[in-house]
Amino acid sequence: MHRNSAATVSGPVLVIGSGLLGASVGLGLSVQGVETWVSDISPTTEAVAADIGAGRSLARLVEQVGPESARADIDPQLVVVATPPDVAAHTVAQALEDYPQAAVVDIASVKEPVLLALRETGADLSRYIGTHPMSGREKSGPVAARGELFMSRPWVICEHDDVAPETVRLARGLATDLGANVATMDVQEHDATVALISHVPQVMSSLLASRLRETPLESLSLAGQGLRDTTRIAASDPGLWVQILSANARPVVETLYGVREDLNRLIATLERPTADGARLDIAELMTEGNDGVARIPGKHGGAPKAFSALTVLVDDTPGQIARLLAEVGEIGVNVEDMRMEHSQGQPVGMVEISVVPTARDGLVHELTERGWKIAE
Amino acid sequence: MHRNSAATVSGPVLVIGSGLLGASVGLGLSVQGVETWVSDISPTTEAVAADIGAGRSLARLVEQVGPESARADIDPQLVVVATPPDVAAHTVAQALEDYPQAAVVDIASVKEPVLLALRETGADLSRYIGTHPMSGREKSGPVAARGELFMSRPWVICEHDDVAPETVRLARGLATDLGANVATMDVQEHDATVALISHVPQVMSSLLASRLRETPLESLSLAGQGLRDTTRIAASDPGLWVQILSANARPVVETLYGVREDLNRLIATLERPTADGARLDIAELMTEGNDGVARIPGKHGGAPKAFSALTVLVDDTPGQIARLLAEVGEIGVNVEDMRMEHSQGQPVGMVEISVVPTARDGLVHELTERGWKIAE
Repeated sequence: MHRNSAATVSGPVLVIGSGLLGASVGLGLSVQGVETWVSDISPTTEAVAADIGAGRSLARLVEQVGPESARADIDPQLVVVATPPDVAAHTVAQALEDYPQAAVVDIASVKEPVLLALRETGADLSRYIGTHPMSGREKSGPVAARGELFMSRPWVICEHDDVAPETVRLARGLATDLGANVATMDVQEHDATVALISHVPQVMSSLLASRLRETPLESLSLAGQGLRDTTRIAASDPGLWVQILSANARPVVETLYGVREDLNRLIATLERPTADGARLDIAELMTEGNDGVARIPGKHGGAPKAFSALTVLVDDTPGQIARLLAEVGEIGVNVEDMRMEHSQGQPVGMVEISVVPTARDGLVHELTERGWKIAE
Repeated sequence: MHRNSAATVSGPVLVIGSGLLGASVGLGLSVQGVETWVSDISPTTEAVAADIGAGRSLARLVEQVGPESARADIDPQLVVVATPPDVAAHTVAQALEDYPQAAVVDIASVKEPVLLALRETGADLSRYIGTHPMSGREKSGPVAARGELFMSRPWVICEHDDVAPETVRLARGLATDLGANVATMDVQEHDATVALISHVPQVMSSLLASRLRETPLESLSLAGQGLRDTTRIAASDPGLWVQILSANARPVVETLYGVREDLNRLIATLERPTADGARLDIAELMTEGNDGVARIPGKHGGAPKAFSALTVLVDDTPGQIARLLAEVGEIGVNVEDMRMEHSQGQPVGMVEISVVPTARDGLVHELTERGWKIAE
């Protein structure tokens, strides 16, 4: 990443909270030449973040010159609060007080509770705006941080009635300087959106995976890609999710009411699978699922059926997938998406490649000519 | 695929039902030199299956010599019933009567109802055995058929009290001749297993995707890989799933009772997120999900954490992924799994590569040296 001459944030920037996201913000700004400072309630985390180049340590400066001089010396243009959600509002309020010239953004994954809590403090909200970079990873801590973490990901900016234009400009600048795509919505819309696209999927995955605790391992050895895909995010960190689900409880529970209604209907139907209308009931549920998933945009923002898939059998030896993709490249076709399918303890793998529909038939023909086995 | 000298099924084989699975069985056996016949209630489907090389058309022979002579002329060693689940038992009973020397297997995805229905007919069950190749695809019909469809996939054989050893031998032979991995369990165990690892995941995915029907497309454009993975199988064929869920209603509903209990507990907790014990309740649900997903075996039958992942940023141009994988191959590291992550309308993609843990650090170092950006 190089210094972008169109960058908005000129610095200095103080990042409070130096975990995965905070340290990644620091790294991404530092490599662009912005003067960046990091801070964390844990001295070890702060030191690690400073060591990896996320910014200079606020604590070390405070040791040298005392807290008041340190604040005056840094005089940040922007403070980024990257703490866990349950302390975000308190940290923002403190930052607004400590740095009366600075704009303050937080990046917590739930937005309305932070804004409501800040309103109660009577803080100067013209200098505050809530944001949410949608770049969570399964790993945590500053060691996992990367300046590129936000590239090409959505970063939601939640404007509110009291915010000043300069604060909005800096928040948008932070997101775009780090390579993210800015999306704008108000806090309620944001929280309802993430409940639906992130928090409820997490709950459903955990509920499903939880059923596997007593399953014999022999049965689980028959598991296919469907089970793997639906349970993957159930491996996420419980500590973080307790905070997220607690903070966004209302929108999550409102979506879960709908899930429960459908689940109760399905259970009643499956208790009498030969009753009149039972098959129609099941078909309706499945069709509703079809309709829902069809609305998720694909990689380039198009409809999910914008690409056609083919499955190629490959030997499980180094270089096979590279050779396959090199040949696809030679044929002149761009791979839009790809996934490798697991199989059970066997030396043959399957690679599913998605391409634009007009390219599929020709690609199947060319690959077959070259000796590849196409399984679908 | 070449003729395997150790093949068990010498033929002739009659496949009844010429959709994706039946035609794939026919293709896989035909290319090994087995005399194969195909049949379907739809003349068009049967003709297509014959045209693509899945076997000779039974209907055409019947036209020429009449039904009785046709049956005598073919004299199958093995009949494979590949019809939809709801007509499997009836079709098996008819085949046992029509071909008194043949072993008969069905490949329906639910097994106990078929066996119970056959018991009621008083058929000769020494020549019948239920099996289930776990190779379903999202596509259907004989055009999608491939002889390699069963390779490296589990194929469950459900022995029962009345089955003759020769019938079991032929069923196992069919599976291994087609490259599948044989697993053995009784019908109840099979149906409970597929309820848990296939049918309930399908239900959960459909229930979740169904919530997206009213979501603004702008909100869905923020969707990440988590939502995509958890809803992918919600795109499956409703007609097929009505049959599967109806036929396996009892084991599915018993697992759904557990889901409902957990869901009710979570809803009650989220209705009072600040009550005593609320956070502990949520943490328990999440941890139970962690425990369940950790039990799913990985690609080589090991634990899911047998591999370490790294994420590489790639330009969205032809040949980039091929170049990456070629360089990984040069470095001498085997790619155990890989997935490409979608991003929203941007020219940068992320490829997550899984490798053995001991290879990860060296690979990150080598790739970075070569100029690749590692995002994690």
